Amino acid sequence: MRIGVIGAGALGLYYGALLQRAGHELRFLLRRDYRAISRQGLMVTSPRGDFHLPRVAGFTESRQIGPVDLVLVGLKSYDNDRLCALVEPLVGAETALLTLQNGLGNEELLAAAFGAERVVGGVAFLCCNRGEPGTVHHLDQGAVRLAEYARTDTARIDALAGLFRAAGIACEAFPDLGRIRWEKLVWNIPFNGLCALTGLTTDRLLACAASRQLVEALMREVITAANRQGLDKPLAAAELVPRLLQATMQMGAYRPSMMIDRLEGRPLELESIYRIPLERGERQGAAMPRVAMLHAELLVTEQGA
Amino acid sequence: MRIGVIGAGALGLYYGALLQRAGHELRFLLRRDYRAISRQGLMVTSPRGDFHLPRVAGFTESRQIGPVDLVLVGLKSYDNDRLCALVEPLVGAETALLTLQNGLGNEELLAAAFGAERVVGGVAFLCCNRGEPGTVHHLDQGAVRLAEYARTDTARIDALAGLFRAAGIACEAFPDLGRIRWEKLVWNIPFNGLCALTGLTTDRLLACAASRQLVEALMREVITAANRQGLDKPLAAAELVPRLLQATMQMGAYRPSMMIDRLEGRPLELESIYRIPLERGERQGAAMPRVAMLHAELLVTEQGA
Repeated sequence: MRIGVIGAGALGLYYGALLQRAGHELRFLLRRDYRAISRQGLMVTSPRGDFHLPRVAGFTESRQIGPVDLVLVGLKSYDNDRLCALVEPLVGAETALLTLQNGLGNEELLAAAFGAERVVGGVAFLCCNRGEPGTVHHLDQGAVRLAEYARTDTARIDALAGLFRAAGIACEAFPDLGRIRWEKLVWNIPFNGLCALTGLTTDRLLACAASRQLVEALMREVITAANRQGLDKPLAAAELVPRLLQATMQMGAYRPSMMIDRLEGRPLELESIYRIPLERGERQGAAMPRVAMLHAELLVTEQGA
Repeated sequence: MRIGVIGAGALGLYYGALLQRAGHELRFLLRRDYRAISRQGLMVTSPRGDFHLPRVAGFTESRQIGPVDLVLVGLKSYDNDRLCALVEPLVGAETALLTLQNGLGNEELLAAAFGAERVVGGVAFLCCNRGEPGTVHHLDQGAVRLAEYARTDTARIDALAGLFRAAGIACEAFPDLGRIRWEKLVWNIPFNGLCALTGLTTDRLLACAASRQLVEALMREVITAANRQGLDKPLAAAELVPRLLQATMQMGAYRPSMMIDRLEGRPLELESIYRIPLERGERQGAAMPRVAMLHAELLVTEQGA
């Protein structure tokens, strides 16, 4: 399959590398890593085994990539005003668009521009970051959950999940995109924001009783909002909150993506991780005072940045 | 009158200097500024006119000060575990104890150790900071509100207010200590914490719509809690919130004391400004989710400091 990767940060490079290693024809839109990757290929370090792809097809403009079978979108959502222009040259008659971006609102942009039928949403559970240009460090996890945005037929996502699994990516197809997106937000909303705001890693937030309780209260607000979105099955706070805390404890001194964005001077993904979820929660009458407060704190520090 | 100043930071030095200039016998417990003040006296810069006190009685230990008529307490409340030991040598048969410290709980400590009858509470509206050792910079404001802690007779605070006014300090006696303490908290709780947490001055918080709304929501939570404490007159949010915002706007790029404490690596006054007010609010069934959240964020970053 010919696969184009738009937004080749850590996530796009890592999954793209695995798919290329599995025999697919990958085409990456590159910016920072273009020269290094063109010259020396792509190096992936991973606890599952390092590997090197000596020849990687990198491009600096989307129109050089041309139509593909699958577009894998890993663009930071704060760059979404460029999303459709970047994707457009890759779209042929049968092209599927898979966005693995954070938060809400990404599928809607692609659907409005290219048709809802094309769009697949995915949630990645991946600890990964870029090292020197041309190198990606996979640290932990890596599972992907897929769901159709508009189609009710699951044949396409079942096939895509199989294709991912064949490339060594734990991948499952789910019937409700809203459910997998909101369930991820139950983790992202407390940890991304609080770590970015305080500069503290996840373990530090969990080691202090007051902030651990705050994390739990934020999670419960997100779950309440999620369960008013007409999900196929409600999220169960009694099971989900302790499970996420337990899993986070095992991640050690983890720096969520938004914390890294702030430390490295990039914008924050406030629109997709906070503003749109808040808007959808409030539209359904869910009280989210703590989430709104965290959003306000991030917004004002963003304007200060 | 013989007046001892315990906790001679910017506030204690400034009011002490005004009282000494008015003819009272001042005795300062000093730490950082001891050598400079012993050698060259105390310099006060102020928009109301700079002045210099060539001879200032500074001491490094309370027992060198001995009994006084009035103890003026300006100690940072995070040092309250030392408060009573520092005050004790200054207490004679008729000594009055006036605490101008921030927040709640300070009077209770003095009352438990030395008798409730002695204790007067005061709230200072003062923009002031220390410069080089031996120098205090008065920037703006300076009014003081006094109230008895336990006495119902106002003769003492009326006399103290007169004594402060005669020294050039705008000062009024109030009938309800709870009311003046809580009214001050309506400002302190949002601005001290948010500025310390974000590193942004008050004008930046007010310039962003989301954080300005957060400040207002925090103020309303504090007002609701205050009005369940049996104040003599309730605080009126409709009048107080816009008045405080307006006054803050006029203060420009102001750095509240807690922000300065954090920037200079000192502890934060979380106990008196957050924990005790939260406890008293929650005891009366007032919901304070945003105040509790801000407290948790400050606590965890404090542990990270």
